[in-house]
Amino acid sequence: MSNERLDELRAKIDELNLQLLKLINERGRLVQEIGKIKDAQGTYFYDPVRERKMLDLILEHNDGPFETATLKHIFKEIFKAGLELQEDDHRKALLV
Amino acid sequence: MSNERLDELRAKIDELNLQLLKLINERGRLVQEIGKIKDAQGTYFYDPVRERKMLDLILEHNDGPFETATLKHIFKEIFKAGLELQEDDHRKALLV
Repeated sequence: MSNERLDELRAKIDELNLQLLKLINERGRLVQEIGKIKDAQGTYFYDPVRERKMLDLILEHNDGPFETATLKHIFKEIFKAGLELQEDDHRKALLV
Repeated sequence: MSNERLDELRAKIDELNLQLLKLINERGRLVQEIGKIKDAQGTYFYDPVRERKMLDLILEHNDGPFETATLKHIFKEIFKAGLELQEDDHRKALLV
């Protein structure tokens, strides 16, 4: 019985993982578009004030079970990955 | 013009962040339920074979822009947070 329930829960988690993947990549594409605009404007990709604002908004909406510190850590990794994407695009644009 | 577009993109990213938050917390609740079953069964929370399978499925579905290594890193952080949640619940159950 509990093994059936485990399988059910795991199937739900697999589905959630794929939804997360989709959103993370969608976020990546938006971040790339922002990077192109910033590149054209000659402004820095990294914007600590904007990161702070994003985090504040996220944490305001947190109703658990994850704690603030854990979510902060996960989202900082997601932000960093976005920044790296912009920097990669910038380097590739210079090489063309 | 491009500043308007930047604001638009940022609003979309804020929305995506909140969707990510919702899914990550939803995932946390499922992981907690799995933890309770495992606790009752006396099996280990950490299951490297299952983690490998989850990652394989995620990476199979990746169509970018993020690279495999980046997604692996982000998802490992999400998995680790889930494991910590199970371990916290276990400790709390022992203290009751």
